[in-house]
Amino acid sequence: MKPYSRILITGAAGRLGTELRKGLGHLAEHIRLSDRVAVEDLQPNEEMVVCELGDYKAVMDLTKDVDAIVHFGGAPLETDFETILDSNIRGSYHIYEGARQNGARRVIYSSSVHAIGYHEMTAQIDADAPVRPDSLYGVSKNFVESLGRLYWDKFGIESLCLRIFSSFPEPADRRMLWSWLSFADCVQYVERGLSAPRVGYTIGHGLSDNRLKPVDDSKAGHIGFVPRDTAEGFRDAVEARTAPADPKSPSVQFIGGWFCELGHPDDEAKK
Amino acid sequence: MKPYSRILITGAAGRLGTELRKGLGHLAEHIRLSDRVAVEDLQPNEEMVVCELGDYKAVMDLTKDVDAIVHFGGAPLETDFETILDSNIRGSYHIYEGARQNGARRVIYSSSVHAIGYHEMTAQIDADAPVRPDSLYGVSKNFVESLGRLYWDKFGIESLCLRIFSSFPEPADRRMLWSWLSFADCVQYVERGLSAPRVGYTIGHGLSDNRLKPVDDSKAGHIGFVPRDTAEGFRDAVEARTAPADPKSPSVQFIGGWFCELGHPDDEAKK
Amino acid sequence: MKPYSRILITGAAGRLGTELRKGLGHLAEHIRLSDRVAVEDLQPNEEMVVCELGDYKAVMDLTKDVDAIVHFGGAPLETDFETILDSNIRGSYHIYEGARQNGARRVIYSSSVHAIGYHEMTAQIDADAPVRPDSLYGVSKNFVESLGRLYWDKFGIESLCLRIFSSFPEPADRRMLWSWLSFADCVQYVERGLSAPRVGYTIGHGLSDNRLKPVDDSKAGHIGFVPRDTAEGFRDAVEARTAPADPKSPSVQFIGGWFCELGHPDDEAKK
Amino acid sequence: MKPYSRILITGAAGRLGTELRKGLGHLAEHIRLSDRVAVEDLQPNEEMVVCELGDYKAVMDLTKDVDAIVHFGGAPLETDFETILDSNIRGSYHIYEGARQNGARRVIYSSSVHAIGYHEMTAQIDADAPVRPDSLYGVSKNFVESLGRLYWDKFGIESLCLRIFSSFPEPADRRMLWSWLSFADCVQYVERGLSAPRVGYTIGHGLSDNRLKPVDDSKAGHIGFVPRDTAEGFRDAVEARTAPADPKSPSVQFIGGWFCELGHPDDEAKK
Amino acid sequence: MKPYSRILITGAAGRLGTELRKGLGHLAEHIRLSDRVAVEDLQPNEEMVVCELGDYKAVMDLTKDVDAIVHFGGAPLETDFETILDSNIRGSYHIYEGARQNGARRVIYSSSVHAIGYHEMTAQIDADAPVRPDSLYGVSKNFVESLGRLYWDKFGIESLCLRIFSSFPEPADRRMLWSWLSFADCVQYVERGLSAPRVGYTIGHGLSDNRLKPVDDSKAGHIGFVPRDTAEGFRDAVEARTAPADPKSPSVQFIGGWFCELGHPDDEAKK
Amino acid sequence: MKPYSRILITGAAGRLGTELRKGLGHLAEHIRLSDRVAVEDLQPNEEMVVCELGDYKAVMDLTKDVDAIVHFGGAPLETDFETILDSNIRGSYHIYEGARQNGARRVIYSSSVHAIGYHEMTAQIDADAPVRPDSLYGVSKNFVESLGRLYWDKFGIESLCLRIFSSFPEPADRRMLWSWLSFADCVQYVERGLSAPRVGYTIGHGLSDNRLKPVDDSKAGHIGFVPRDTAEGFRDAVEARTAPADPKSPSVQFIGGWFCELGHPDDEAKK
Repeated sequence: MKPYSRILITGAAGRLGTELRKGLGHLAEHIRLSDRVAVEDLQPNEEMVVCELGDYKAVMDLTKDVDAIVHFGGAPLETDFETILDSNIRGSYHIYEGARQNGARRVIYSSSVHAIGYHEMTAQIDADAPVRPDSLYGVSKNFVESLGRLYWDKFGIESLCLRIFSSFPEPADRRMLWSWLSFADCVQYVERGLSAPRVGYTIGHGLSDNRLKPVDDSKAGHIGFVPRDTAEGFRDAVEARTAPADPKSPSVQFIGGWFCELGHPDDEAKK
Repeated sequence: MKPYSRILITGAAGRLGTELRKGLGHLAEHIRLSDRVAVEDLQPNEEMVVCELGDYKAVMDLTKDVDAIVHFGGAPLETDFETILDSNIRGSYHIYEGARQNGARRVIYSSSVHAIGYHEMTAQIDADAPVRPDSLYGVSKNFVESLGRLYWDKFGIESLCLRIFSSFPEPADRRMLWSWLSFADCVQYVERGLSAPRVGYTIGHGLSDNRLKPVDDSKAGHIGFVPRDTAEGFRDAVEARTAPADPKSPSVQFIGGWFCELGHPDDEAKK
Repeated sequence: MKPYSRILITGAAGRLGTELRKGLGHLAEHIRLSDRVAVEDLQPNEEMVVCELGDYKAVMDLTKDVDAIVHFGGAPLETDFETILDSNIRGSYHIYEGARQNGARRVIYSSSVHAIGYHEMTAQIDADAPVRPDSLYGVSKNFVESLGRLYWDKFGIESLCLRIFSSFPEPADRRMLWSWLSFADCVQYVERGLSAPRVGYTIGHGLSDNRLKPVDDSKAGHIGFVPRDTAEGFRDAVEARTAPADPKSPSVQFIGGWFCELGHPDDEAKK
Repeated sequence: MKPYSRILITGAAGRLGTELRKGLGHLAEHIRLSDRVAVEDLQPNEEMVVCELGDYKAVMDLTKDVDAIVHFGGAPLETDFETILDSNIRGSYHIYEGARQNGARRVIYSSSVHAIGYHEMTAQIDADAPVRPDSLYGVSKNFVESLGRLYWDKFGIESLCLRIFSSFPEPADRRMLWSWLSFADCVQYVERGLSAPRVGYTIGHGLSDNRLKPVDDSKAGHIGFVPRDTAEGFRDAVEARTAPADPKSPSVQFIGGWFCELGHPDDEAKK
Repeated sequence: MKPYSRILITGAAGRLGTELRKGLGHLAEHIRLSDRVAVEDLQPNEEMVVCELGDYKAVMDLTKDVDAIVHFGGAPLETDFETILDSNIRGSYHIYEGARQNGARRVIYSSSVHAIGYHEMTAQIDADAPVRPDSLYGVSKNFVESLGRLYWDKFGIESLCLRIFSSFPEPADRRMLWSWLSFADCVQYVERGLSAPRVGYTIGHGLSDNRLKPVDDSKAGHIGFVPRDTAEGFRDAVEARTAPADPKSPSVQFIGGWFCELGHPDDEAKK
Repeated sequence: MKPYSRILITGAAGRLGTELRKGLGHLAEHIRLSDRVAVEDLQPNEEMVVCELGDYKAVMDLTKDVDAIVHFGGAPLETDFETILDSNIRGSYHIYEGARQNGARRVIYSSSVHAIGYHEMTAQIDADAPVRPDSLYGVSKNFVESLGRLYWDKFGIESLCLRIFSSFPEPADRRMLWSWLSFADCVQYVERGLSAPRVGYTIGHGLSDNRLKPVDDSKAGHIGFVPRDTAEGFRDAVEARTAPADPKSPSVQFIGGWFCELGHPDDEAKK
């Protein structure tokens, strides 16, 4: 028997959502997918719901009959505040409210390195470090982490807030030589979050087994994530086609990378 | 010469705003007041602006020619999410954006014990403890603390996030025998935040010199707050008219008090 | 109304028990006293029970109709193991079992500096430091602290384990210039432990406000103990009649003092 | 030349004692075995002593001419207090006294996860965490750990207190998928404890290299234990035959597992 | 009887040395003074030795028949490296060697805030923080602190390394409103260091009881320093005659103050 | 293109310098070598400069046109103070000044376990532990670590201070079974320090992947050192030819080993 009857994946049409669909099927009888656009290749065990996360009623419907939620939806990058407010803040609140009202037991949330982007790489922080967002996007990640903490302490809904570093098909630049999270490792972390006997409220840091370690993820040891990939195989190619960055630039100094060099989105938009 | 040309106080018509008006006049040539309703006894050094913090344009105007902001506006208690979203989250974003666009240097923000309400009193936390909100209201306080962190790290605006415990004319119940912050001490903490040579990003915990200490505020030692009042003088009267609470009830176990016993505001509203 | 109906004081005929009798009367309608010998000056609100704490049935009777227990009984100094086993280990187990079976809600236990006596004074430990007993007596204090932890975590009985340093009428030697706990302060700490809204499981360090501070007691801030006495007034007299000790002797190096220079009690007995 | 002349193993007829007999022979010329019953297959390098650890004189004899003691004897589970008092508390005291009087240099003690069973799995504690026993059995483990600390600080006898999680032939339930310590790894940890150049007073946590990590054992890095087994190979079979537990049950919440759901042994006995 | 037979004060002709002469007389039969120039008002209990600390033989003579050394000599400010090397590094080595060869038991060393000047005021460090010197002068203070550590661990000579912040007749600028150490408090700290029963190796932070606290000195609680002065009485005058500094300037950001804005002494000399 | 134009290696004729010459060629167009004697087998990409590090002018010339410095020169063992002062203290100051004046961006410094030699092995320290040198040699290592900290904080020159444990062709005694750093691993650590995107100020602990771990090097995770060798293959041979040491001897108790048993070099010289 599978551990869950129905898992909801939000952001299912996105880059990581597409990977998650492939990797979580063994954990639930049914996978419900949600995004602003329909996925094209719906599988027999899947059901698709097109909706906006900012729509309260739609999300209350979306979360019916769901045991667990893999919440990867919302704006994936720095953008204007009202978009972040609606998609990430209001939308994530709806997801947690749907979980509460409809009885989902566990949420795996795609938090981000940008929730802690202004910590220095040399500081070697772990999950107990205070938040230091590097963008409005990062602030919205802190909001949802705080919300997950409340819904565990008060309403008993477990959350794994997985701070994803750089999850791409392969390392695209020198920073990703230490910040890369392979798709397979990303899916594995989510899968372990869904399978672990006790999640409570846990913060995880999603990184493959790269040679350079920017943070210490040992506080999530009870989740059982063991990365299997590493960026090392891509090092020579990446270094051959990219120049080293200045060690004193904010994008190298801080673990948030180039987000730390972005100005305010309103100013950026005017450029 | 006064250290500031013009200080803005939001929530100026409220319980604490009224106290702040009296106590900060020596720090600025002009005090601008803002609230949803006008104050009635405007003083010569004061100017009143009635506006909603959720109104972007209004707040950009409100924050013009302001050196420092004492941000005490917004919903003061647990309430429905959309109210919190508009008043506390969007509204505070507008305040920080106004500070950034108009060149204010420092913000004193009325954060709250409810940002960390689910920590146990016996845990004796300090400012480095992870957030544990006890309400949607508390989550919004975490949001603004995160925003203040970003605006310091990226935009160079200093913030003192002052987690106010219970600021009332006098201790009203047994919990306030340890959670009370007298009006005078509250005003003093804000005044010290405005006067300290360096605030950077600092979290303070606003408590008078009560006998029982639920948290350790020493990480804010550079602000120079030295409480002068204590709840002890009220102890006998309070104990005479109130019964002791069960030590195992959430409202005694956790520093957030009765907020920890509140259900979800939507459920409470239905009661 | 007094907070407790009946408080039991064990070791009531001892040096500290005698002080406690005088200072706790306002907290309970009845004070039950227990010791191996009867007290001579029984007061109207007191009832005396002469018994051995090592006698299971006697202690089950002793703890009937009791709301709180101030457990100061047992061997007060290093002695042979079988005495410690019977008086301190078995006896304290009986007290906690009595509390559990008869519904007492809170225990104030006279633990001791000797539970942590092998920590160096220069280490400036607090309540989170690992135990380092300096004697079999100290090991028995660790046993009861561990037992109190269990009875809180599993059975919901609150405990304040008060590590008493040197509670005497006045400082008798140079070490007591920093280790002294006046009788009044000792009684105050117990009284605060009985009155605090939430004790849960708390470790306190009983010291008057002496100039030299060997440990940090701030983790017990929620108990509200504020020492009012100090050894300073006795300094000149003490220093005049005693020679300074060698800074490198164990009795100065470690906070347990001369207990750290004691050999094994079986060897000492043979001397 | 072997590092020890004679090692004493207590509890030698038990489940783990039997394994230890096989694995420690290369470390000593002679292995002395002790238990309440004789082992049946005595080897040429072994000598058997049948005795009760609660018998002072017998243990003083038992520990004669012994260099090191592997102390695995005593009650292995929660039971009534008097049994624990005699077997685990008095008995272990006799062992340490025997070591002291007869000149043994090092003790490897089978402490237990139940010494810290009420810590949450999500807390990811290490060896510096305060004790939190989950049973009278666990309290007795704390007693012996405290005793070992004293005998090192005062009498110079080294101790490795090895907190064994679940040492069985194979993982028997879902909890053991993270709490399992294979027999080979258990023997290895003891062997390393006997071989390490410096033990002083060390607390170790005995776990195989399972995927989920409930505690951090790095504070024992100087012992050199490197687990070689893992529960993963048993996962499919265990999960197939057992249902998942409720993440909110004490037996999942706390690392002590089902001990945390046990009532008091006297109550349990009445059931 | 006085606790010491003879105390040596180096730098005795300097600003602080002059104060120390007045305040330490009750602690020793004889006070030996050392500096590059003679003091003019030699008292009956004093003996003067004019010498260079960089002169090995002279210092070996200087330290003869001395029980304790108050080492305040050497270059008091940032200067060229060879001066620092000779006066502070070689000179202090000679002092410790003199202590070792001649049997002095305790050294009180005038370390400095500049040993840790690059820590941020908002970091609220304590004595366990890593060193962060703000000058070559500060590096030399780290050298002597390291040397004192060695001479304690290996040779058993106790050291109090007293990191003096700003010891002047009165606060001279706004920074001194938090960094001031009155002369009386400075002398008190030294006196307590000479009188404390156990110093071992202790780092203290010399500050009067100013309202703003830049560091936490509680790790030196066993020394018994209790500041009696405060800069507050000077606040109005100082603020009236000085302008506030930019909160973002290094001299406000870091506790080392204007030393953090100094360039390299060789470059400064060329200006 | 190679990351550096020219790397300077000091101490190039020494044991480790010889290894570094072989392993760093791929990182720079040119390798400049420096030592008191010339190397004999100069390679085409190498240039040799014979000089004393204590000679200011020579070192200013030596460091011209250099991007990075691998500073392994100076006295390699405990010796008299004046030698250490000239070679290690003055010499290293010259190296950092050369870096500053000539624009080198990064220094890899051969610090040593002897900078922290008086920490106990059982303490399991990491890079944040206070220094505890075991020798004048170790004090000089602390000096240079402090200097590197200053040159980063004030002058922007990055430093990796690599605390080398025992780097020899193979483990020579039992201590090296845990303290060994193979030549290949030593070279790798330096190489990683030169290649890491951000070093800032980092302290590393150079150890191969030996079974026993005396310290925790995870604070240097961003350097990316992954040891590939281990002392285990040498264990049997080492144990066969050497006797175990007394666990209570300083050379086993402390991580500095036999340096902790050395007397003062002046006394040793007289033996």
